[in-house]
Amino acid sequence: MIIIAERLNGMFTDVKKAIAEKDKKVIQDLAKRQTDAGARYLDVNVGTAAADQEGTMQWLVEAIQETCSTSLCLDSQKPNVIAAGLKVVDADNGVLLNSTPLNKKNDDEILDKFIEMANEAGPKANIIALTMDKNGVPQDTDNRVAIAAEIVSKAMEKGFDTQRLFLDPIILPVKVPDAQIQPTNILNAMDQIKYLSDPAPHMTIGLSNLSQGTTERSLINRIFLPMAISRGLDSAIADVLDKDLMNVVATSEMLMNKQIYSDSFLKVYTAANQ
Amino acid sequence: MIIIAERLNGMFTDVKKAIAEKDKKVIQDLAKRQTDAGARYLDVNVGTAAADQEGTMQWLVEAIQETCSTSLCLDSQKPNVIAAGLKVVDADNGVLLNSTPLNKKNDDEILDKFIEMANEAGPKANIIALTMDKNGVPQDTDNRVAIAAEIVSKAMEKGFDTQRLFLDPIILPVKVPDAQIQPTNILNAMDQIKYLSDPAPHMTIGLSNLSQGTTERSLINRIFLPMAISRGLDSAIADVLDKDLMNVVATSEMLMNKQIYSDSFLKVYTAANQ
Repeated sequence: MIIIAERLNGMFTDVKKAIAEKDKKVIQDLAKRQTDAGARYLDVNVGTAAADQEGTMQWLVEAIQETCSTSLCLDSQKPNVIAAGLKVVDADNGVLLNSTPLNKKNDDEILDKFIEMANEAGPKANIIALTMDKNGVPQDTDNRVAIAAEIVSKAMEKGFDTQRLFLDPIILPVKVPDAQIQPTNILNAMDQIKYLSDPAPHMTIGLSNLSQGTTERSLINRIFLPMAISRGLDSAIADVLDKDLMNVVATSEMLMNKQIYSDSFLKVYTAANQ
Repeated sequence: MIIIAERLNGMFTDVKKAIAEKDKKVIQDLAKRQTDAGARYLDVNVGTAAADQEGTMQWLVEAIQETCSTSLCLDSQKPNVIAAGLKVVDADNGVLLNSTPLNKKNDDEILDKFIEMANEAGPKANIIALTMDKNGVPQDTDNRVAIAAEIVSKAMEKGFDTQRLFLDPIILPVKVPDAQIQPTNILNAMDQIKYLSDPAPHMTIGLSNLSQGTTERSLINRIFLPMAISRGLDSAIADVLDKDLMNVVATSEMLMNKQIYSDSFLKVYTAANQ
């Protein structure tokens, strides 16, 4: 399971403050703690507060790279902010571009641009692609799969290895009215997305989004995750510091026969991912 | 979710002792506690120690019925022990006959006998049928589904409502060598079993069997259950006294849109099942 650690995000108060005060220590401490907890990638998101988003992205990337060599996931709605991060990131270490839809109302070529950016960054640069297009986020299973299929087919046309794609079927907060059918739709979409190419593209989700605004955030995340892993989910942007959640990951992988059972399977998993 | 509470089983030391000493209080206390915790059925299994299994089954049933009116699940490998229980059980309250395979080496008609017993007991008598036949427990998905299909077809031939069938794909301990592929096979079988009739037959599992002999019993049970619920599992023989497990049930049902989300969904679920 490829865990993309979510905490280095300007939406969190401590990170927002650290960005405003240019306090590297807070950033570096979170980078180290998340790495120790088993993060394969560290998501880096400047949030909305910083005036200079490109400069802030670069400052964050450089601060993190001073302290650890964990792969980074450059997270922004704005391609130019990701591009700014790519200028300073150590892409040979692996990097994820997070994220692009299939297309946008005023930018039909955005996926192509991401593929170009990733190719320029080198063979270890991967892309998170959302099952979303110029019409927005589809609510049903079929349109999610159709968009995923278009993304995979576009990648193939461009000669971009589908193993470098992380398809994200976009999970919405279960608390949002009418969104309660979404978890089922997403699981059904995953059942199909995994067959879009062979080997399958990666699948990822922004897990914590599901429990946004609820009173039982960790529990809800911990229940949906095994459902999704059993459908082939092999990555998630998640709270790697939630030890209970990481035990869920280890147990799910063991039950799906991706890790051999031993009485100490939890410790074996933790040790293998540190 | 139809929870069949597992604790009234002579395999547990306290129940074994209570049976030996004819100590009703221990039995009645467990019956009440499991009912309060949300059990829809109480499994009743005399275990292997009692010499007079038929008499012990009747004593257990009568002791429980003195104290609560929860539906009972008469659990024995021996049809005569279940038949003995049926003589004293209040079948109008609902009863489960647990369990029969499709057929046995020396008893090709065992499923027919169970259907007859259930029909004699009345319209609220249901059957747990194992996806197992004279060749034993199949290890793969296809044979599980094939046996389930034969069970459903036999029930239909006999005019036995498929809603009265609880199909159990038989989960093996994950610790048993070579059994680690079983959870995946069982989930895949469930994906197909639910389409064998419309409305679908119930599906149940002996959840605790999965974690037999492991160091992380509750955790393993709590991770497999949401996977199975997301495939249509609507019943389980489980430890209803494990509060964490019951929260998993409530959260899974909410995520599968079987209970409306509210900030107090855990309390709402508990209240509705007491």
